[in-house]
Amino acid sequence: MVLRQGDDAFARLSSLMREEAISSATILGFGFAGSVTFGFFDFETGNFRPRTMENLELTNLTGSLAWKDGEPSIHAHATGSDYSFKAFGGHLLALQIGRGSLELSVTLMPMHLERRLDPAIGANVLQLT
Amino acid sequence: MVLRQGDDAFARLSSLMREEAISSATILGFGFAGSVTFGFFDFETGNFRPRTMENLELTNLTGSLAWKDGEPSIHAHATGSDYSFKAFGGHLLALQIGRGSLELSVTLMPMHLERRLDPAIGANVLQLT
Amino acid sequence: MVLRQGDDAFARLSSLMREEAISSATILGFGFAGSVTFGFFDFETGNFRPRTMENLELTNLTGSLAWKDGEPSIHAHATGSDYSFKAFGGHLLALQIGRGSLELSVTLMPMHLERRLDPAIGANVLQLT
Repeated sequence: MVLRQGDDAFARLSSLMREEAISSATILGFGFAGSVTFGFFDFETGNFRPRTMENLELTNLTGSLAWKDGEPSIHAHATGSDYSFKAFGGHLLALQIGRGSLELSVTLMPMHLERRLDPAIGANVLQLT
Repeated sequence: MVLRQGDDAFARLSSLMREEAISSATILGFGFAGSVTFGFFDFETGNFRPRTMENLELTNLTGSLAWKDGEPSIHAHATGSDYSFKAFGGHLLALQIGRGSLELSVTLMPMHLERRLDPAIGANVLQLT
Repeated sequence: MVLRQGDDAFARLSSLMREEAISSATILGFGFAGSVTFGFFDFETGNFRPRTMENLELTNLTGSLAWKDGEPSIHAHATGSDYSFKAFGGHLLALQIGRGSLELSVTLMPMHLERRLDPAIGANVLQLT
């Protein structure tokens, strides 16, 4: 899958999951981010603290595709570097492709996988059984 | 494979290799690290200089599973970011999962692979032939 | 594929593509870089601004193999960390393996893929159709 300038990565992946009826998958990507919002999990609030950065070479995106309550559930982390080549990263909250592209490799898995909220930690966890 | 809070990644991967009799594999992962020890190879001593960090969003873990003298030989590198979204990384010496999970995708390869110490560089190297 | 000290990653991957007649592939790697040149895309000039660094633990290399005008077209991004464990990264312009090795996993895809220059953005883009 090749995303282009202005594409929203989460919207495009959700559409792909519905159109192709993807049971579950591993995703691996790299490209150029016009705007990316990283999150760092805040134990106090149970939410991700966000930071939005612009124009990063996305050096790696690693994630998985599953379902939650009948909706696509996309979980991904990413690393990117700015013009000074310093690297940043975190849980991926939002990603819009920049001037360039994002190449995404989607490795399908045959089993239907669901995520469920684990109340003990306040986070969604992929269920394998 | 989904590891949970408190799990030791190396112990869990070693068990998996024995139980499933894994010949060799590529691993790809991401999640939340409670405690991670990175190493940087020190040419002088031939050992890894360690640094332990706590509570990192592990943005990527890339590695391979092989065998050495009949024992599981796990080689992995990882990148993670702290609350300021700055990224750190290195050779993975130890990893305990934090409050959250670590999703690991294990891609099996059919051939039995061994690592052997290369005396010229003082490091273990994966042997393909 | 295991590259060793002094190997040039782009030369070795180009040879592999020709010898094995690889239509297209995803690549995933990690190892030790003796010398790595990262690039950050400069919108003004349409070229990559380079920075060469020595002796990095390469924590992740993510890329794809395709063809352009009959020649191997290798596109990869990488992240690496120095002795202080700080991470750097970018578009991969050059990579020589250091004292150690680089393990590269090449996942073949059956379709022949080409890259083409997109004049609107001044960058080569992988064509899926």
